[in-house]
Amino acid sequence: MQIFYAPDLTPTDTRYTLSDEESHHCIKVLRMGIGQQMHLIDGRGTLYSARIASAHPSRCQIDIEDTQTNYGKRNTHIHIAIAPTKNIERLEWCIEKCTEIGVDAFTPLLCERSERRQLKPERLQKIIVSAVKQSVKAYMPELNPLTPFEQFVAHPNTANGLFIAHCNQNNLPHLHAQAANHSRIVVLIGPEGDFSPHEVSLAEQHGYQSISLGQSRLRTETAGIVACHLANLFA
Amino acid sequence: MQIFYAPDLTPTDTRYTLSDEESHHCIKVLRMGIGQQMHLIDGRGTLYSARIASAHPSRCQIDIEDTQTNYGKRNTHIHIAIAPTKNIERLEWCIEKCTEIGVDAFTPLLCERSERRQLKPERLQKIIVSAVKQSVKAYMPELNPLTPFEQFVAHPNTANGLFIAHCNQNNLPHLHAQAANHSRIVVLIGPEGDFSPHEVSLAEQHGYQSISLGQSRLRTETAGIVACHLANLFA
Repeated sequence: MQIFYAPDLTPTDTRYTLSDEESHHCIKVLRMGIGQQMHLIDGRGTLYSARIASAHPSRCQIDIEDTQTNYGKRNTHIHIAIAPTKNIERLEWCIEKCTEIGVDAFTPLLCERSERRQLKPERLQKIIVSAVKQSVKAYMPELNPLTPFEQFVAHPNTANGLFIAHCNQNNLPHLHAQAANHSRIVVLIGPEGDFSPHEVSLAEQHGYQSISLGQSRLRTETAGIVACHLANLFA
Repeated sequence: MQIFYAPDLTPTDTRYTLSDEESHHCIKVLRMGIGQQMHLIDGRGTLYSARIASAHPSRCQIDIEDTQTNYGKRNTHIHIAIAPTKNIERLEWCIEKCTEIGVDAFTPLLCERSERRQLKPERLQKIIVSAVKQSVKAYMPELNPLTPFEQFVAHPNTANGLFIAHCNQNNLPHLHAQAANHSRIVVLIGPEGDFSPHEVSLAEQHGYQSISLGQSRLRTETAGIVACHLANLFA
């Protein structure tokens, strides 16, 4: 079943007009017609079953037939704060995979050793929307702006599990063992050259626990996916 | 420290000549010179510490100074048999990420619903070599040829944990719970349209257990990474 994104749809609506872009995709690309069924998500937890009422290529109207609120709601809030990779495709891929696996918030981090210091958030947002539709998530992960590391760790955080993944130390506890008893998890993932010792120490001063993601030396984007997956095992 | 691949190096060698390609990379691309240190891996479990003896751009000679056998050896053998994705880049990503996380063998599977029915193994092999070097693995994962599904599941297998991941059924046990007591694991991952009911039934007849990879609907390549990561949690 095709899925469309309808950010301003609410569970009490009975009729809705798809955006210009979604109408075009529905009518021109997928060649859907009157009476055909579809699903919609609002990004705030509701999945809608609907049917095309008018097959207009830029203002496609649909009738809502059923709604499921809290669709796929998880018990854990997972926030991945990650230094963007030099090659932006690697970050994009990480964001797509985390969205599929299950994530609630992303914050791109500006670190001491970050090689990439600029981002195009519109493109990342598009990747999130596409992954949300593809994997039928009713909740849209939040994408925060690029934030300096010091600012991020110093900011008051409602999470009860604060973790920083790094390789500056051997024998760190594995996130798998540490994440279990936490319902709101933040994991910090560093850039290609890892977090600096100063950054690790700063995070620890703000209550972050240093953890390992396993024996393997992982690239930044792989570390992001692995951390997200580990947090999800307890979600 | 730079890592080079030396498939015909053995732990008793004291001097070695890098391949034409690795010599070029070392001397021309990285501009390394006499006396500079490097690591080498032979793909069969040994990590070598070495130093450049002669900086020839196509026949770079090195002196071996130290060897570590069974470097990073895991207790679990992990074999991912996966239907190649329509977009080959997605399979390439999966192979790169599994290699980083830890995997021993890959078999591309030809399934009933496979949209891609051909592969270029040389390119996949290059991706494995590059990921092995990047993540400092002394063991090279084995890449098997594209194999028809029926043939793969019918072939006698020394693994004690045989699993097939699919979405044809609800409430399947999670691989996380099932993988724990097995030292040799095979996980089958289907194509974009999933395995057919006939394929699932055939695999089950050959001793494969149907498992889930979690609540999320995952793309083929994401399922491969998630399965590999889960198997590694017990490795």
